[in-house]
Amino acid sequence: MAKKDVNKAAIALHKKLRGKIVISPTMQAKTRDDLSLIYTPGVAAVSSLVAKNPKLARDYTMKGKMVVVVSDGSAVLGLGNIGPLGALPVMEGKCALFKTFAGVEAFPLVLDTQDPDKIIEAVMAIAPGFGGINLEDIAAPKCFYIEEELKRRLDIPVMHDDQHGTAIVVLAGLINAAKVVGKKLNDPNCWIVVSGVGAAGVAIMRLLKLAAPKVNILAVDSEGVVWEGRKDLNDTKKKLIKDKIIFAKKGGDLATALVDANVFIGVSKPGVLTGHIIHTMAQKPIIFAMANPTPEIMPELALAAGAAVVATGRSDYPNQINNSLAFPGIFRGALDNKVTKITDAMKIRAAQNIAALVKKPTAAKVVPGPFEKGIAKAVARAIR
Amino acid sequence: MAKKDVNKAAIALHKKLRGKIVISPTMQAKTRDDLSLIYTPGVAAVSSLVAKNPKLARDYTMKGKMVVVVSDGSAVLGLGNIGPLGALPVMEGKCALFKTFAGVEAFPLVLDTQDPDKIIEAVMAIAPGFGGINLEDIAAPKCFYIEEELKRRLDIPVMHDDQHGTAIVVLAGLINAAKVVGKKLNDPNCWIVVSGVGAAGVAIMRLLKLAAPKVNILAVDSEGVVWEGRKDLNDTKKKLIKDKIIFAKKGGDLATALVDANVFIGVSKPGVLTGHIIHTMAQKPIIFAMANPTPEIMPELALAAGAAVVATGRSDYPNQINNSLAFPGIFRGALDNKVTKITDAMKIRAAQNIAALVKKPTAAKVVPGPFEKGIAKAVARAIR
Repeated sequence: MAKKDVNKAAIALHKKLRGKIVISPTMQAKTRDDLSLIYTPGVAAVSSLVAKNPKLARDYTMKGKMVVVVSDGSAVLGLGNIGPLGALPVMEGKCALFKTFAGVEAFPLVLDTQDPDKIIEAVMAIAPGFGGINLEDIAAPKCFYIEEELKRRLDIPVMHDDQHGTAIVVLAGLINAAKVVGKKLNDPNCWIVVSGVGAAGVAIMRLLKLAAPKVNILAVDSEGVVWEGRKDLNDTKKKLIKDKIIFAKKGGDLATALVDANVFIGVSKPGVLTGHIIHTMAQKPIIFAMANPTPEIMPELALAAGAAVVATGRSDYPNQINNSLAFPGIFRGALDNKVTKITDAMKIRAAQNIAALVKKPTAAKVVPGPFEKGIAKAVARAIR
Repeated sequence: MAKKDVNKAAIALHKKLRGKIVISPTMQAKTRDDLSLIYTPGVAAVSSLVAKNPKLARDYTMKGKMVVVVSDGSAVLGLGNIGPLGALPVMEGKCALFKTFAGVEAFPLVLDTQDPDKIIEAVMAIAPGFGGINLEDIAAPKCFYIEEELKRRLDIPVMHDDQHGTAIVVLAGLINAAKVVGKKLNDPNCWIVVSGVGAAGVAIMRLLKLAAPKVNILAVDSEGVVWEGRKDLNDTKKKLIKDKIIFAKKGGDLATALVDANVFIGVSKPGVLTGHIIHTMAQKPIIFAMANPTPEIMPELALAAGAAVVATGRSDYPNQINNSLAFPGIFRGALDNKVTKITDAMKIRAAQNIAALVKKPTAAKVVPGPFEKGIAKAVARAIR
């Protein structure tokens, strides 16, 4: 469908659905006896039991299977800060996909505050009933602080999917793309340039460096290459240098950074990459152009300029780097295995498991399609 | 079932159900095209539309049909302050009943705070996605402050069901009980004694006095009759006197208060009422003994002592005064009619509509049973 048609169809569908999730009782009360078991007076015995043994909540209540998807609407898709009501259709959609792809119960909460500490307080307040927290579409850099604080203070898994879901699927795609071009990621000769240093960019770089410590990463933001000579760096960017995630001896623009680079990863803006720049990269360049909905370069242009593998965020081209490959299985595994933190080791295993689902990677297929079978299960196996 | 058997069966059932609600998508994504409509990229058009026209959220998102049931676990059933996890089975049960009785989508949130202002902040923060807020099992007197503040600050209906749901069903039952004994409620000769001045007691007295302004109400708490001569009254009780809801010229105990009274309403403790006291009441006394699970007096004893009508909170005796007659229909009506406040006039009409469902009230039937048809519809008609 053309973009205009998709938009029109989406609006019509949403008006018809009037919300993308509904609540269903696991047992219909049909008699007074039913009522006395699922509600008063019988429920009092369950309440007493759980109050005395809080760990039993996972077995006797929804806590063992329910995830909450939380957003303040400050960075929604490519739309920016459109607030909680604007974010709600996205969060509902995400909850619907959680169920469809992994049988995970998920409920959307959109917050009437964009203050980081108030977001933390609100999530802390509502946490007891949930087995996991998926933060979504919260702007950088506050998303890093919010996630870290919640991870520290809660004993259930907390994951900002824009960071880690994206990073996992990008790593999965890169593992296979490297095979396709016959290169190694974990090699000092492998140079990766990441365009965009927001939530996704930072998480991608950190996960890449953990999975392939010998790789060299250059980060480029709207002001050019991120390096220690710049005076405008925020704490997140300074920390990337300090932690040796990225390394650059001098500044420059994206075109300069990409000369002889092996991989371009774009989580930035439409049009920042050109065929001309791709021509200056190393042989068999890998291009992940994931700006949404319009990529950093359109796939046909990248291929014409010599790209060996091209991936985007779009469903109408091959190699869609889609979070829905990761998040349903991550929380499926976390709930099933009563995991309290999603660790880096789990994320790397999840990426490897996604990559392994593509038996024979080709330039046109470095990641599985979202509806292929076994994806959530393969990811869930990594989360233990 | 005996109490012990009910408890055992309830625990076994809850372990089997592992949570009493699940989330279902209103549309299963089966193809990439489905994905592009319910999630990215199509959902962006819906998000933009709703962000620009917040009122459309009721038509394009779950907001138009979703209620949140919120508790801090500070006053759960007869169990007292057992905290959020202990409250969760009750809230889940309530959400299941919302759907079963009135097709209302409802989701439970239990809060990890019992501070009134923090409860208000948390509810304010999560409110945007909901069309109504049902507060539940929050202790008095803070429940009054929390409800008032949220009503003032939010543009969606907020109702503390322990107060108003109970008051509506009690009024419905009294309307029919008065018919059965051939008396008028709205009559200066009608004396009603309310035992228990917590959330339910206060709401019952206020609604009764609004529905039948000429009635005389005496309130009795654990220290005896509430009157201006007492030095230990909290603000809630002082306000009942100031607002002329209750009136007493002198103090005394429950037995003294009930001499020549027409109606006893108990929302207090098991065993505070005796057959001996009932003998001293006016002719054809009406006894609503609603302490849970053990009433202020057992029905057989009350009837033996001359009670004309006896109601309790129990499902194993006639005349169960059960909130589930009211709350599902109240929010059904509020959502359908886009009501922003549940007013006193609506509550009185709801009680009248419930009462009218019993075509020929008798001593053994002053309220409909919970599974009779048309209850939620009759209540919903009152909320407009």
